[in-house]
Amino acid sequence: MVQRLVVVGGDAGGLTAASQARKRRGPDDLEIIAVERGRHASYSACGIPYWIGGEVSTVDDLVVRTVAEFREKFTIDVRLRQEAVGLDLDRRAVTVRDLAAGTEYRLRFDHLVLATGAVPVRPPLPGVDAPGVHLVRTLDDGEAVRSTVDGGARRAVVVGGGYVGLEMAEAFIRRGLAVTLVEAGAQLMPTLDADLAGVVLAAVRGLGVTVRTGERMREIATGPGGRVAAVVTDGGSIPADVVVLGLGVRPNTALAEAAGLPLGSTGGLVTDRRMRVTGPGGGWVDGVWAAGDCVQTTHRVSLAPVHVALGTHATKQGRVAGVNIGGGYATFPGVLGTAVTKVCGLEIGRTGLGERDAERAGFRAVTATVESTTRAGYLPDAPGITVKLIAEHRSGRLLGAQVVGQEGAAKRIDTLATALWHAMTVEEIAGLDLSYAPPFGPVWDPVLIAARKAWDAVVAAS
Amino acid sequence: MVQRLVVVGGDAGGLTAASQARKRRGPDDLEIIAVERGRHASYSACGIPYWIGGEVSTVDDLVVRTVAEFREKFTIDVRLRQEAVGLDLDRRAVTVRDLAAGTEYRLRFDHLVLATGAVPVRPPLPGVDAPGVHLVRTLDDGEAVRSTVDGGARRAVVVGGGYVGLEMAEAFIRRGLAVTLVEAGAQLMPTLDADLAGVVLAAVRGLGVTVRTGERMREIATGPGGRVAAVVTDGGSIPADVVVLGLGVRPNTALAEAAGLPLGSTGGLVTDRRMRVTGPGGGWVDGVWAAGDCVQTTHRVSLAPVHVALGTHATKQGRVAGVNIGGGYATFPGVLGTAVTKVCGLEIGRTGLGERDAERAGFRAVTATVESTTRAGYLPDAPGITVKLIAEHRSGRLLGAQVVGQEGAAKRIDTLATALWHAMTVEEIAGLDLSYAPPFGPVWDPVLIAARKAWDAVVAAS
Repeated sequence: MVQRLVVVGGDAGGLTAASQARKRRGPDDLEIIAVERGRHASYSACGIPYWIGGEVSTVDDLVVRTVAEFREKFTIDVRLRQEAVGLDLDRRAVTVRDLAAGTEYRLRFDHLVLATGAVPVRPPLPGVDAPGVHLVRTLDDGEAVRSTVDGGARRAVVVGGGYVGLEMAEAFIRRGLAVTLVEAGAQLMPTLDADLAGVVLAAVRGLGVTVRTGERMREIATGPGGRVAAVVTDGGSIPADVVVLGLGVRPNTALAEAAGLPLGSTGGLVTDRRMRVTGPGGGWVDGVWAAGDCVQTTHRVSLAPVHVALGTHATKQGRVAGVNIGGGYATFPGVLGTAVTKVCGLEIGRTGLGERDAERAGFRAVTATVESTTRAGYLPDAPGITVKLIAEHRSGRLLGAQVVGQEGAAKRIDTLATALWHAMTVEEIAGLDLSYAPPFGPVWDPVLIAARKAWDAVVAAS
Repeated sequence: MVQRLVVVGGDAGGLTAASQARKRRGPDDLEIIAVERGRHASYSACGIPYWIGGEVSTVDDLVVRTVAEFREKFTIDVRLRQEAVGLDLDRRAVTVRDLAAGTEYRLRFDHLVLATGAVPVRPPLPGVDAPGVHLVRTLDDGEAVRSTVDGGARRAVVVGGGYVGLEMAEAFIRRGLAVTLVEAGAQLMPTLDADLAGVVLAAVRGLGVTVRTGERMREIATGPGGRVAAVVTDGGSIPADVVVLGLGVRPNTALAEAAGLPLGSTGGLVTDRRMRVTGPGGGWVDGVWAAGDCVQTTHRVSLAPVHVALGTHATKQGRVAGVNIGGGYATFPGVLGTAVTKVCGLEIGRTGLGERDAERAGFRAVTATVESTTRAGYLPDAPGITVKLIAEHRSGRLLGAQVVGQEGAAKRIDTLATALWHAMTVEEIAGLDLSYAPPFGPVWDPVLIAARKAWDAVVAAS
């Protein structure tokens, strides 16, 4: 008898699960239907700032696979503008609303993948829904921002100084807008320690962005036609033709919650290692899986539950769910909080725990920061790099790492993430056989220099 | 009583040992004398091709620290043009010849660091010593090549298609010479598998270098004044104004051998983990240390002795020796054979065992090769990357990795080297939390895609 897999959410987590399940089970064995409430499925949300900034020319470039490709190549029925509005775990059925037709129907399932993603934080402030105020979460959001810019916006205000905020600030600069970035916290990039965040601040200012930290948005003032006119903060009023909110996200779990599924402390769905959703009783719910931004996972260093909304985790988790639905065996190993971005030529990477994270997790930490280059110093224009390591007191075990620098800097975080994965001490890291040639760094790679210095600091503090 | 440390060899291994020992023991406790037979000490030999190619403007740029700096900042007495010609382990003294004065003297030591480096292979063929035929090992060699090029050489022949050969071919192209590269083996870059070496071959040819593989040099034909006129191979005669031999190196152990110290199977000195030299009886010789290209070390995957002449190992080993001489504790953990180079915009990296190495070490291997990009595919001009992984049959344990590609490709080898360090399986590697953002790759990093494909291959072969 043909079983049915219903996937709720047509992006990275959901459609990776669908494809992986299909790889292992043919259409005669498993029917696959994916419902997506938006107008697009299977796209790179991370690419939206590059599309708005003009580096990517058409929205189609961001689409990984079209609905037609899913149907023809994979026999996966991806349905757009179809929102799952009800989940009945006992009867094993999802209620779906056809947003265009306004009708509803039920889909019975044998397997269900909850890949409902995350919803961007939109604070309940006056004017926050005014035309011209945008989120940058979906391709639909991206199209809205782009059309506002194309419509002649000259002044942009970006609220929130994290990854999305910085990437959008750069995109607006590329499009020739005057840009103000407002961040309620004391620093940009809250996932970086304050010292490295200071390096980023200087670079962003160097790009021509007006940065206002420590200012909280109070309301959006509107003008003619109710359109956005200014962002009002506790520091004043900033005129704006277009506003983007980059205030983070929270797991989108309304459907699951209404069905009685428990949430974790971070607000995300809880799963086991195979991405099976944990039910009210604590065990997993048979045939119900989850992947992507709607789930919480475990940080491999703090061992605490975390919610990290990133496409890498979504695709990995989707793959794990799909392999398991397909009758294979795969597990998701948790995360380190590795992240990277590039803003105006400045490459920024981080992994593991920052100084404050480490303290919050109960560690006593020692840090070391070094300045080096990503080419031999004697080669012309050797790009600079700052590497900061956070190590555990006494043991010297790496707890986290941060890099900020120019060309060739960011991807060094992967080496440190792999070292962190294995709980290496900074002394051990200093002995790693990393590659060396003058076009790629000094004879002691910046990673190794930082590890040596961190080990010296650990010894000195012991 | 003041002890004395004598260092034989004034480059990476020896002077790193000296500096580290000084950091821990002041001049009142430890006198440090380093003798170097060449005209330069403490320089980047790896930078020589970039100096000849004109990217580095003066030879002084390649000097890490001058003799004056060593004297003034570190109270280390570095003596140039002084060759250690005798070693008496019983009397604990080195006989040194002053090459300028032609005189000899003895230096008693409490600690000795043998850092005599490697000697380049110069096959005993007719004409091989003719003016215009160069090695590229020392700064003195580099000065000789540069002066030949500055003197109007138009046609260069590079013999040997390894790292040095390729880097020199590019350097000559930069200087406007017509370049022929002769390699006796069937492929360039013998440390790469044949398939990836083919990618390199195409790039080197694209640069305008005439590449002749499978041709062995038979003699150097000379012309007026006995100068080089052509390289004669079993495939013909190639006119040349300047010839560079890049045929590899062997450990320079004459001094140690004459003193009765045993050599390992690779021809290098044998040490323990703290870089103490192994004596005739098998135990270590008290106070005698070695570091750098004159020692053999252990490959962490094959567990076989290997001789890898690289500045990274030399500095790490020198540091270990110096820390231990200084009363601290440090060990050298062996190598993976990680290496990287850049030739005409093509980045080439490798670590661990290649396919043939794996077989030779007794492994049965499974491989996977993937093509990907080092930026998201939808960004303009996303640079290409080829990643090949070599994994063990059944276990899926990573044995080695090779990457060839454009900007952003090579340093990914460090992530794989770190994974290899921990004997990760390719399945585990596919779960690593590596960084992702569109300027740095697709959502599945090329490393992860390769690991997934390699795991599929392992499963299929099991």
